[in-house]
Amino acid sequence: MAGSSAVPKTMKAAYLVGTRQVEIREVPVPAPAPDEVLVRVEAVGVCGSDVHYYEHGRIGRYVVEGPLILGHEASGVVVAAGHLVKHLRPGQRVAIEPGVTCGRCEACKSGRYNLCPHVRFLATPPVDGAFAQYIAHRADFVHPIPDDMSYEQAAMVEPFSVALHAIRRSGMRPGDRVAIAGMGPVGLLTVAAARRLGAGDVIVSDTVDKRLQLALQLGASEAVHAKQGSLAAAVRERWPEGVDVAIETAGHPDAFASLLPALCRGGRLAVVGLSPLPLKELDLTQLTDGEIDIVGVFRYANTYPAGIQLMRELDVWNLITDTFPLAETGDALERARTQKSESVKVVVYPQA
Amino acid sequence: MAGSSAVPKTMKAAYLVGTRQVEIREVPVPAPAPDEVLVRVEAVGVCGSDVHYYEHGRIGRYVVEGPLILGHEASGVVVAAGHLVKHLRPGQRVAIEPGVTCGRCEACKSGRYNLCPHVRFLATPPVDGAFAQYIAHRADFVHPIPDDMSYEQAAMVEPFSVALHAIRRSGMRPGDRVAIAGMGPVGLLTVAAARRLGAGDVIVSDTVDKRLQLALQLGASEAVHAKQGSLAAAVRERWPEGVDVAIETAGHPDAFASLLPALCRGGRLAVVGLSPLPLKELDLTQLTDGEIDIVGVFRYANTYPAGIQLMRELDVWNLITDTFPLAETGDALERARTQKSESVKVVVYPQA
Amino acid sequence: MAGSSAVPKTMKAAYLVGTRQVEIREVPVPAPAPDEVLVRVEAVGVCGSDVHYYEHGRIGRYVVEGPLILGHEASGVVVAAGHLVKHLRPGQRVAIEPGVTCGRCEACKSGRYNLCPHVRFLATPPVDGAFAQYIAHRADFVHPIPDDMSYEQAAMVEPFSVALHAIRRSGMRPGDRVAIAGMGPVGLLTVAAARRLGAGDVIVSDTVDKRLQLALQLGASEAVHAKQGSLAAAVRERWPEGVDVAIETAGHPDAFASLLPALCRGGRLAVVGLSPLPLKELDLTQLTDGEIDIVGVFRYANTYPAGIQLMRELDVWNLITDTFPLAETGDALERARTQKSESVKVVVYPQA
Amino acid sequence: MAGSSAVPKTMKAAYLVGTRQVEIREVPVPAPAPDEVLVRVEAVGVCGSDVHYYEHGRIGRYVVEGPLILGHEASGVVVAAGHLVKHLRPGQRVAIEPGVTCGRCEACKSGRYNLCPHVRFLATPPVDGAFAQYIAHRADFVHPIPDDMSYEQAAMVEPFSVALHAIRRSGMRPGDRVAIAGMGPVGLLTVAAARRLGAGDVIVSDTVDKRLQLALQLGASEAVHAKQGSLAAAVRERWPEGVDVAIETAGHPDAFASLLPALCRGGRLAVVGLSPLPLKELDLTQLTDGEIDIVGVFRYANTYPAGIQLMRELDVWNLITDTFPLAETGDALERARTQKSESVKVVVYPQA
Repeated sequence: MAGSSAVPKTMKAAYLVGTRQVEIREVPVPAPAPDEVLVRVEAVGVCGSDVHYYEHGRIGRYVVEGPLILGHEASGVVVAAGHLVKHLRPGQRVAIEPGVTCGRCEACKSGRYNLCPHVRFLATPPVDGAFAQYIAHRADFVHPIPDDMSYEQAAMVEPFSVALHAIRRSGMRPGDRVAIAGMGPVGLLTVAAARRLGAGDVIVSDTVDKRLQLALQLGASEAVHAKQGSLAAAVRERWPEGVDVAIETAGHPDAFASLLPALCRGGRLAVVGLSPLPLKELDLTQLTDGEIDIVGVFRYANTYPAGIQLMRELDVWNLITDTFPLAETGDALERARTQKSESVKVVVYPQA
Repeated sequence: MAGSSAVPKTMKAAYLVGTRQVEIREVPVPAPAPDEVLVRVEAVGVCGSDVHYYEHGRIGRYVVEGPLILGHEASGVVVAAGHLVKHLRPGQRVAIEPGVTCGRCEACKSGRYNLCPHVRFLATPPVDGAFAQYIAHRADFVHPIPDDMSYEQAAMVEPFSVALHAIRRSGMRPGDRVAIAGMGPVGLLTVAAARRLGAGDVIVSDTVDKRLQLALQLGASEAVHAKQGSLAAAVRERWPEGVDVAIETAGHPDAFASLLPALCRGGRLAVVGLSPLPLKELDLTQLTDGEIDIVGVFRYANTYPAGIQLMRELDVWNLITDTFPLAETGDALERARTQKSESVKVVVYPQA
Repeated sequence: MAGSSAVPKTMKAAYLVGTRQVEIREVPVPAPAPDEVLVRVEAVGVCGSDVHYYEHGRIGRYVVEGPLILGHEASGVVVAAGHLVKHLRPGQRVAIEPGVTCGRCEACKSGRYNLCPHVRFLATPPVDGAFAQYIAHRADFVHPIPDDMSYEQAAMVEPFSVALHAIRRSGMRPGDRVAIAGMGPVGLLTVAAARRLGAGDVIVSDTVDKRLQLALQLGASEAVHAKQGSLAAAVRERWPEGVDVAIETAGHPDAFASLLPALCRGGRLAVVGLSPLPLKELDLTQLTDGEIDIVGVFRYANTYPAGIQLMRELDVWNLITDTFPLAETGDALERARTQKSESVKVVVYPQA
Repeated sequence: MAGSSAVPKTMKAAYLVGTRQVEIREVPVPAPAPDEVLVRVEAVGVCGSDVHYYEHGRIGRYVVEGPLILGHEASGVVVAAGHLVKHLRPGQRVAIEPGVTCGRCEACKSGRYNLCPHVRFLATPPVDGAFAQYIAHRADFVHPIPDDMSYEQAAMVEPFSVALHAIRRSGMRPGDRVAIAGMGPVGLLTVAAARRLGAGDVIVSDTVDKRLQLALQLGASEAVHAKQGSLAAAVRERWPEGVDVAIETAGHPDAFASLLPALCRGGRLAVVGLSPLPLKELDLTQLTDGEIDIVGVFRYANTYPAGIQLMRELDVWNLITDTFPLAETGDALERARTQKSESVKVVVYPQA
């Protein structure tokens, strides 16, 4: 293991110890395995899933059963590397891709490693996450970042990867008209990604004015307040034939229901948002008559190098509304939980 | 116009004149336009849509408003050709592709001519169909058939095209496990097409024993009676990870609902059947967590040459259960409407 | 036909009447067919193929056998419309897509209308082109442009379409490293398109300094003077594993030969340039061992709406080096033929 | 490690010890690692690459530098399994996929593991192969076979995988016309695979009558003796527009040159054969004017499960012309080297 000299023996980490209870603990710094690097964590974004575990202790089949470190949108600097690691060395600034996959199952072998049943994903129980001063991670999921990229940008390559994968899955082509529902961080980054990759007009909806404003700044051409109007109606008013692509990031059946009738024939709807509620009615003839595609989107695969490239041009400070030191991780989660009309992306600094 | 010498001036055609009322009329033989051929119709399959117009007078937005000739699964022999026609001449035996598209809209230009908004499709009001002794049709939608192909096979290239397009849209790869719901003619032909194009195991469901038996003859490895068991349960019992591809041809939300949970992660569900009833509940997390694709299938495009090639090997006499002369077209439609446990494909012979 | 009142009976047009001989003639303004519009031509780019016909009287199997109007990169304003035309009306500013295809052959029906054997393409003998004050063109190949788009931009959607199609055929994905040989107008527009659609680093080569400078302005990260160094060597020096995508727009076997060894395993090489010379040696094991794709690119299909969208953001004045009135079309062609180190895109104004 | 009780301590293996010199040695049976299984090898096909190493001691950059066990088309029965192995147990009959990849590089992660730079491939120096009584192999590259599959069939899933991957890379669609050059085992299996997956007519060429006969038995519709006629001419005579897909398996530039002009516009040429000689001239305008794709094919990825499924229907005894016990492995290689007009696939039985 190279370069571990300056690494302390213990570190601080923020543990979720009960419903809405976070505790800072002093624990041993992990030792990287031969194929891992040890990363000093510099910035970690708070994700909706972190907030969900914090509030509910579970997401579907994943249940928090003991103290758990949350946080999976992370960046930092390599401080030590196992002896099998070739492409990274101490001092290298990096973005961390949080899901470590097996590389041997059918999903992995066919290029869809996001569907690996053996994945170990940061901050998904029982795997600890990145609200900690150091983290050991398999080196092939640790990506170098350029010198001119901030740690905040690097951390946000994670939600940006969701956006990029959603766009890829949506089959979006240059010039396509795109409707996007839900202007949380993933929705906003999807606006940015769609525009960056050649979308024509992008029309969005949300229920929070501030988020709609951000969407317009990121390149949306029209923003619909979902309580004041219908996205599908706004689409049809401007483009009677409908949009080519729709992307659901709100995680709500109403958003899904507002997008399907906005599509042109042959259109594609990508579903990103995790909706706890079921859709109450689906007119199947819409699918057949329109030859519509509906595609689920689960995390991402093979997005990091491209995501890092494209992130260089993106000003994420529009999206980062709140920052906290590691000691206040509980406050960070509480802010993200409660201030949805003010806060967009909350960032925790483990070294602060 | 070449070769019209032997063509009579008038012909018989079967008109739908009211609910479940068919009348044989003597009408002028149509004159082919310069880019059309005149075809003496030899065999016409009865499709579910014919039966639906016969019984209900409409399908969705398409309403029968006057006497209408039904029938769109047709074959015959060219008896005359307009002067612009190059690839066909009188005497040529042919299969008729029933939808004549504009060739100039965005859908046509991008290779998805099945979505052409200007299509004129046989037996879709107000366009007359093929239950007639002669039909004039644009020559580029009239396909030569080999000498060893029967007119019945040629007529069935039409529903077989639906099957081929469904399989293409489903993304089926060689070796894939496939579940198919609904063993009407399209479902049965989808079984045959899936097996012919390299599917691994094919598991099917229906509520009619005879149709399940036919599916097994056509290459299905397991058949589930939908009233006696769950297709998804049968799938999971044999293959705990699920099937790669599912195809819904039954046109019923229960069939849709039985297929979605049968899919593996990353699986694809193609929806072919026109379901008059909506789906009552859709768990959206199934889509996202499984990264499922649901794709609508509307008719077909670019299938005829391949369909004719592959049809040569297919014994359609297993599927043809009833035949009628043109004079009994009403009986043919009535048979198809009422005898669903005995009849599969009903064929009308306009020259008989 | 609507709106023809202000259209004169005759117009000026520039005819190629012999090798390097252009003559301005007064000829009747064409009358649009029912499915055509009459366009008053406002700007026409000079393409390398125009220059080739001007100098050699032929390109491969296409031979100029009588007086011919050249020019196919055209924009203008609709002044009259046939009675079947729905989406355009007099006054509409437009870009003209020069190839009018049949819509009925296998190539057209499968979405690859650029391969239509029946295409009538402007300025390809015996079809007259757009160095004229008016042109009649089938309306479905005439595309509205936004108010804020210049006629020069609209004319350049044609070569930009080649670039977009090349990138699509190349399979370029976001973040890919791209090498492009040949910085003529198509090469330069390919740089712009690649960057706009998410390419990572773009490395280019040419033998003219001015063109390399323009490439850097348009977003290339490195420019290699092809007489002073090897593109493949420059690639390998920066990225030992090679580039993901290479695009040949120079039309020279040396350019092809410089790109193939620049590719990573699994890389793709798109060949756009029409090379009159053959490649003298091809190591086939490069293809197999590297599992390389080499894809030919012929014109384009389904690019105009996207091309117009993306062209709005592109400052084409960097590329337009010379402008001429219609009366000086011969000088325009001569300039394009001779001043390759100074001139990039030459534009003719038919109304000037 | 389960089930190792009946495994002997030593085994026989056939080592290449010099040019055309094979020696049977008694060596220790390898011990499987925790993620490996130990397979008792039952059948091993002789591949052209084995013969090449046997005769020349190298293939390109791969050089035999010490005694090496050849053979990589292998099947057998699991006799022991490392403790991490879940899907296999002693007694399981299996086909061995010979290339063990890293699962962590960009190629592996994107689904193209055949391009993994870290692959360890059986019988590619310095990795020993399967002409041995036992072999230890990573379990995820060991595939169960059905009870009704012979070991010979299972061994031939390896060259069949090349055929399947070639067809996938070729983009072959149902009904496509296919030309295949080179009727060695891979070419013949490509005929079988193309027909099985829905090819229309398949036209082939070779210089050995026996192989042409076999191709016709496997479903080719026309066979051209390459010394007596041109494949391209035979294609154009039957189908003036050319074939949709061409596949080069002969490994000779003349075969490549005979296929390119046989393609229709928009056609695709897959190059499988490793050609030691370069192509002497390539007319680049063929690529551009025809918008041709030329795709290299290197080994295969994600083919085994499908290959095993489809192999069940294939009678490989048509192709197996010679069989030898392990003690005569040298004779087997010599037969394959010298009797190309009589021998097709030579099989070695390590337990005989």
